[in-house]
Amino acid sequence: MPFNAGFVNKKKIINDPVYGFLTIPHPLLFDLLQHPYFQRLRRIKQVGMTYQVYPGAMHSRYNHALGAMHLMQQAIQQLRGKGQEITEEEALGVLVAILLHDIGHGPFSHALEYLFIADVRHEEISLRMMEHINKEWNGQLDTAIAIFTNQYPKRFLHQLVSSQLDMDRLDYLTRDSFFTGVSEGVVSWDRIIHMLDVRNDNLVVEEKGIYSIEKFIVARRLMYWQVYLHKTVLAAEFRMMQIMRRARELATRGEKLFGTPELLYFLEAAPGRDAFEQDPSLIDRFAQLDDHDLFSAIKVWAKHPDFVLSQLCHGLMYRQLNRVSLQNEAFDAALIESLKEQIVQRYGVLPQEVGYFLQSGTVTNDAYLPEKDIILILRKDGSLKEVTELSDNFNLKALSQTVVKHYLSVPKEFSLKTGIQPANTWLFLK
Amino acid sequence: MPFNAGFVNKKKIINDPVYGFLTIPHPLLFDLLQHPYFQRLRRIKQVGMTYQVYPGAMHSRYNHALGAMHLMQQAIQQLRGKGQEITEEEALGVLVAILLHDIGHGPFSHALEYLFIADVRHEEISLRMMEHINKEWNGQLDTAIAIFTNQYPKRFLHQLVSSQLDMDRLDYLTRDSFFTGVSEGVVSWDRIIHMLDVRNDNLVVEEKGIYSIEKFIVARRLMYWQVYLHKTVLAAEFRMMQIMRRARELATRGEKLFGTPELLYFLEAAPGRDAFEQDPSLIDRFAQLDDHDLFSAIKVWAKHPDFVLSQLCHGLMYRQLNRVSLQNEAFDAALIESLKEQIVQRYGVLPQEVGYFLQSGTVTNDAYLPEKDIILILRKDGSLKEVTELSDNFNLKALSQTVVKHYLSVPKEFSLKTGIQPANTWLFLK
Amino acid sequence: MPFNAGFVNKKKIINDPVYGFLTIPHPLLFDLLQHPYFQRLRRIKQVGMTYQVYPGAMHSRYNHALGAMHLMQQAIQQLRGKGQEITEEEALGVLVAILLHDIGHGPFSHALEYLFIADVRHEEISLRMMEHINKEWNGQLDTAIAIFTNQYPKRFLHQLVSSQLDMDRLDYLTRDSFFTGVSEGVVSWDRIIHMLDVRNDNLVVEEKGIYSIEKFIVARRLMYWQVYLHKTVLAAEFRMMQIMRRARELATRGEKLFGTPELLYFLEAAPGRDAFEQDPSLIDRFAQLDDHDLFSAIKVWAKHPDFVLSQLCHGLMYRQLNRVSLQNEAFDAALIESLKEQIVQRYGVLPQEVGYFLQSGTVTNDAYLPEKDIILILRKDGSLKEVTELSDNFNLKALSQTVVKHYLSVPKEFSLKTGIQPANTWLFLK
Amino acid sequence: MPFNAGFVNKKKIINDPVYGFLTIPHPLLFDLLQHPYFQRLRRIKQVGMTYQVYPGAMHSRYNHALGAMHLMQQAIQQLRGKGQEITEEEALGVLVAILLHDIGHGPFSHALEYLFIADVRHEEISLRMMEHINKEWNGQLDTAIAIFTNQYPKRFLHQLVSSQLDMDRLDYLTRDSFFTGVSEGVVSWDRIIHMLDVRNDNLVVEEKGIYSIEKFIVARRLMYWQVYLHKTVLAAEFRMMQIMRRARELATRGEKLFGTPELLYFLEAAPGRDAFEQDPSLIDRFAQLDDHDLFSAIKVWAKHPDFVLSQLCHGLMYRQLNRVSLQNEAFDAALIESLKEQIVQRYGVLPQEVGYFLQSGTVTNDAYLPEKDIILILRKDGSLKEVTELSDNFNLKALSQTVVKHYLSVPKEFSLKTGIQPANTWLFLK
Repeated sequence: MPFNAGFVNKKKIINDPVYGFLTIPHPLLFDLLQHPYFQRLRRIKQVGMTYQVYPGAMHSRYNHALGAMHLMQQAIQQLRGKGQEITEEEALGVLVAILLHDIGHGPFSHALEYLFIADVRHEEISLRMMEHINKEWNGQLDTAIAIFTNQYPKRFLHQLVSSQLDMDRLDYLTRDSFFTGVSEGVVSWDRIIHMLDVRNDNLVVEEKGIYSIEKFIVARRLMYWQVYLHKTVLAAEFRMMQIMRRARELATRGEKLFGTPELLYFLEAAPGRDAFEQDPSLIDRFAQLDDHDLFSAIKVWAKHPDFVLSQLCHGLMYRQLNRVSLQNEAFDAALIESLKEQIVQRYGVLPQEVGYFLQSGTVTNDAYLPEKDIILILRKDGSLKEVTELSDNFNLKALSQTVVKHYLSVPKEFSLKTGIQPANTWLFLK
Repeated sequence: MPFNAGFVNKKKIINDPVYGFLTIPHPLLFDLLQHPYFQRLRRIKQVGMTYQVYPGAMHSRYNHALGAMHLMQQAIQQLRGKGQEITEEEALGVLVAILLHDIGHGPFSHALEYLFIADVRHEEISLRMMEHINKEWNGQLDTAIAIFTNQYPKRFLHQLVSSQLDMDRLDYLTRDSFFTGVSEGVVSWDRIIHMLDVRNDNLVVEEKGIYSIEKFIVARRLMYWQVYLHKTVLAAEFRMMQIMRRARELATRGEKLFGTPELLYFLEAAPGRDAFEQDPSLIDRFAQLDDHDLFSAIKVWAKHPDFVLSQLCHGLMYRQLNRVSLQNEAFDAALIESLKEQIVQRYGVLPQEVGYFLQSGTVTNDAYLPEKDIILILRKDGSLKEVTELSDNFNLKALSQTVVKHYLSVPKEFSLKTGIQPANTWLFLK
Repeated sequence: MPFNAGFVNKKKIINDPVYGFLTIPHPLLFDLLQHPYFQRLRRIKQVGMTYQVYPGAMHSRYNHALGAMHLMQQAIQQLRGKGQEITEEEALGVLVAILLHDIGHGPFSHALEYLFIADVRHEEISLRMMEHINKEWNGQLDTAIAIFTNQYPKRFLHQLVSSQLDMDRLDYLTRDSFFTGVSEGVVSWDRIIHMLDVRNDNLVVEEKGIYSIEKFIVARRLMYWQVYLHKTVLAAEFRMMQIMRRARELATRGEKLFGTPELLYFLEAAPGRDAFEQDPSLIDRFAQLDDHDLFSAIKVWAKHPDFVLSQLCHGLMYRQLNRVSLQNEAFDAALIESLKEQIVQRYGVLPQEVGYFLQSGTVTNDAYLPEKDIILILRKDGSLKEVTELSDNFNLKALSQTVVKHYLSVPKEFSLKTGIQPANTWLFLK
Repeated sequence: MPFNAGFVNKKKIINDPVYGFLTIPHPLLFDLLQHPYFQRLRRIKQVGMTYQVYPGAMHSRYNHALGAMHLMQQAIQQLRGKGQEITEEEALGVLVAILLHDIGHGPFSHALEYLFIADVRHEEISLRMMEHINKEWNGQLDTAIAIFTNQYPKRFLHQLVSSQLDMDRLDYLTRDSFFTGVSEGVVSWDRIIHMLDVRNDNLVVEEKGIYSIEKFIVARRLMYWQVYLHKTVLAAEFRMMQIMRRARELATRGEKLFGTPELLYFLEAAPGRDAFEQDPSLIDRFAQLDDHDLFSAIKVWAKHPDFVLSQLCHGLMYRQLNRVSLQNEAFDAALIESLKEQIVQRYGVLPQEVGYFLQSGTVTNDAYLPEKDIILILRKDGSLKEVTELSDNFNLKALSQTVVKHYLSVPKEFSLKTGIQPANTWLFLK
């Protein structure tokens, strides 16, 4: 069906708190919204456990996918307005690609990626889901898949879906900032999209937009430390991960656990890449999982006889989370050893079970990573420059290095002897 | 502990997308936030199935309770600024009362009220929960409970919690309008609170605020028809109710159903007023239920061998809801009879099971109901008038009558022969 | 030049606090923005003396004209999306028409209409200015003028420019509400535009938009009483009018006044319809006037030896305005007579000069006036109904009557003996 | 009169588009609002010629002063809530000080400072005006003046009025960003104020607010380059300055110019520090000047026989401004010489008049200047650190250096031969 024709009289609109009205400009997009793979995104929170700190952050991956598609419509219109050719088929393809770019996320994906299907990244699951739908629907997603996998000749279409300045990032920063109430994460998506253009098949930003890019990068960094890597959010996500690890361990040992059949399948069978490659029904099973499976089980597990499982679950339900410390240097190995011993003694757990209660490692934050792909600025004389080279009075280079922080997550009752201040016991406040 | 003293150095703030920063001005309030009865509100959506039409409406009852408490702080400040005495103890009491006013809501409360505990209204459950906490905490909630139950001498404090212009309404209209994106439901809570005063122990509104009151009443009506009683929302909520009715019927018959232990308890035992009065553990059991129990079960029940249950659940999960029609007159009895027969034949269900698929009845909307309690306007000469008497050039009286509409909810495959237009099959759009 | 082509690479954007980015989609529109007739709108406040009550209301007619053009772009896109044909030429025409619809307004136009050019309405001046530009620019405004004067065959284009639901009203309510901070005046322009369609060459609103229309009408009424006809705004505008009347009287008598040459021309020559019809230079002279001419003169006139003029001007500069009373019934003639006598005695002015200090009369407010032109609702079955006939549960009829209020404006020092409360002496507050 | 008492029943509120409602908490503040010195701020635009680029930026210095006072009320409440003592008298003093901090600004102050009263900074004029009022009002401003001049013992009160993080900056960035529509300039004033505290009589920021401070500094820098030092804004402000210089030159030579008596006084008498020190009436004369005096004269001067004056004025009125170029290095002296010669030849002006048409020099932007005064961060362990020392993963140091740019401003008809691109001739767009 031709894009935006024959369909015009039943163009659909959806209210969105962030942008006002969203329009669904093609029946294929509408049909995708109804697909069970997509509808499940309604039941998966966009930012996992973040609502423990920012109570407003209840929005779903469904909201984000629609929002990113809305921004893509604006981007298409801008680029066409600047004389860039985007055919109807390409427009539809890139809209489908952005709509489905995150379809493979499972519940609490950032915490639980690899847990339900070991060694398989969510992008692979997204692609597999697209391929399933494409097969059902006789190839209507061919162009979208080519764009998503960067095999489509016009490379800038892929960049709109996945790059430093893609519609995914513009929407999630805008949306997460909106729902958390962290107004400082706001990015000028409107202005940035107005500044986009294409040169040599690369997405570029007009020079006069350089301050907006700087601010976008600063806002992204701020959102990382203030929201995504907030200590209490980390504590809750680590906890979720340990709960599922413990449940899987018990389940694979043959212990009976409460849970929906699909959740129990993943815990008991613990599928990995082999199953992903060979079992065509795995995707459909995965598509049954959502936040409800996890939380309904965790509430029940809080009374399970296994001390480790019930302790972890009880703490998550009743906000007795670990204290997470972040610092620039690695934590002292002796300190960690001593804490582990205390945990073994106090809790009466086995040494190999200590990892359920104490976690350490690093988190990283790349506000802008030019090694991966770069932001190109289109100068007034037509030349192109990488953004950090141009920004002469602002050290964007400082932001283009990966920041690594070491974390240590320990139950609050164990004190760190290193003189670190006792954490604020008023957990959910910044 | 004296209000706002001793506590000042650890005053807590929470980000809220609607109002910016919320402050928790007293440790008792903070402790209440942490109570399991209150924390469960995080897992109960404020507007139930509304997200089926307005995808942004994922906010929880927790968000609303905090918001209403924030508005109460503004109201206290305003009234004190106008010379009305509100002692520290009263201020704390009215803040506790508004914070907990909805604590007794269960999951999908508007649809499922009376289902889990027959014949008991959520206000009674709220009160019971407050009393439990009060007992645990040695009477710290005495004043709050007196205000909540309108037994406190200063009656206007109760009116701030529950009346035509209470902080509950101001917050829920503001908040639901915000998260649905229905900008027309916005009310000027700020201006209305600035116009509040007290005369003869009654909450009154200064005369210059009369247009704001009119607009508040119009906005409330608009939210009813556009959001709370939206046809698709009704269809989803009726569906939820029928699912739980069917599950309870099967459970009481002895059929084995999947579900969390607490959900199964309520379905199997089907407690009513007697249990509510006599079983002190019932409240704690009830406090275990949230949206996750229901949805995790419904996903599983969609494959249950009982045709009625699986059909109802499948439809809810995959957006095959009934078509709901609304009209001013009652639906033709013969039409309803004919539809019931068709359902029996096509689905092969028993006549007494038809009610799971076809519902009819009335919904009502009182934008402003002066019979219940009135909005008093404080004139410049100091006299008081009921708002509809004053508003000479605007027929508020028209808005002060209960509007009754008849609904008929039938699976989409059955056509109404009365010439009613086929419903829009694009479900989630207005 | 074809619309939106050849121009695409230099499409211009302007920041607007209300809508974000405005786009100028055609060079003709851009050229019009630069025209001196249009640039002068930057120096004319949109809502005259309103900033005396709402200090934020400093926005200019230039801001409003751009905003209305922005909304027109949205409306064109919506109607085209619903299959309504609007050619490129028509689109440009209707954009030009809305951009220039208010170009004929002079400074403080609501107060001073007819004062500088007696008996000539601002719409006539707008048309004359368009015709001047059209002549200069070889007929490029032909279509726009035909639409503006309702002589273009597609009547709905005129309705977009001038009717109960035109882009003018949608923008001015939105904008005036925004800048005054009266959030209750907000209208859902976005939703209303999405609901527009055309039937039988009439602009119509889809039935599901009926609550938005009701709210639009209520908001409009609210803005009238709370902003446009606010007592202090009226007092300031009456004052401005009396100042100019007095200055014109002195000037025509041959008194020397300070003022820009153009202001003095209008005061001394006091042109009327004859001059408007016969003197081709009058429009250019008129186009020189703006708020600066008036205020720079008024500051100087505050020290003029003429008691009436200096008294009036001093009061305007130093916020000693009249008290305005509004009531449903006419003011008592004896009261007015007595006040006039007091003024003559206290001020020592001539009886025929009393009118400079005391004004009485009526103000009217038509929230929706179906006698003039009606709002048509497009029902789901395709039929059309006038909005008040459809709105069965809301008495829109109450809003469709002209409300007339009587005013009496008197210097604050003269007390009304009728028991009316002394006005609030804190002038600028509502 | 005691603060907030006796006054409570007539507390006044004002609508503000930025913050909603502003409250005037004391009669002295209200009386100050009415003072002619203060009322004139209504007629002086906050950001001068900025509206030439951002048409919404019509807001006045009056709006800003009220807004800064509103933020000060929030700050007082926060600091008191953290146990910092601020007496009623101090609270009133610091509110008066912030309300009046900019009262000495004249029209287009950034461009015209020193022009009307040579060698005297606007802060000195502000202080002089405060002293005048203080004398009239029997010392009611004593505390305010002590705070304003940093002679009050509690130094942090002065810092709230004037420092890197004062309420002045927080409001003007918020407000200018709001009215220009440059959403990227938004600062989280709410969050920053919540993070303020006092240590050793210094205003400090709690450590968890460090990202907000970084973002504040970045936003400030962005506003400088995108708004305050925007090339077209610079061109318009340079033009305004040259017009007044030329007018003063003609006036001191004895040429007759049109203008209000006060404007002519300043042009003819050209007062300097001596007059400022010795002529007590000078301040009252200065307080008569506002934007209207300038624009009404400029419109008339556009037809003045002096070529320089009329050319400059005509260009300002009809948007034929200079092209301004900004670069990191100084402009080539030979280029400037050559341009000057061309101007002399083409315009037939004297060599000493070239400066009216061509300007060159430097503009600077200090996003954060620790040499002047520093932002102190209060760490969790109670220690204090300067912000750039703490921000380990972000090079705030890069922002703490003064950025100097060289400008060259030349009429558009003269081409720069250095290969610089021709400036965009669409003036008002970024």
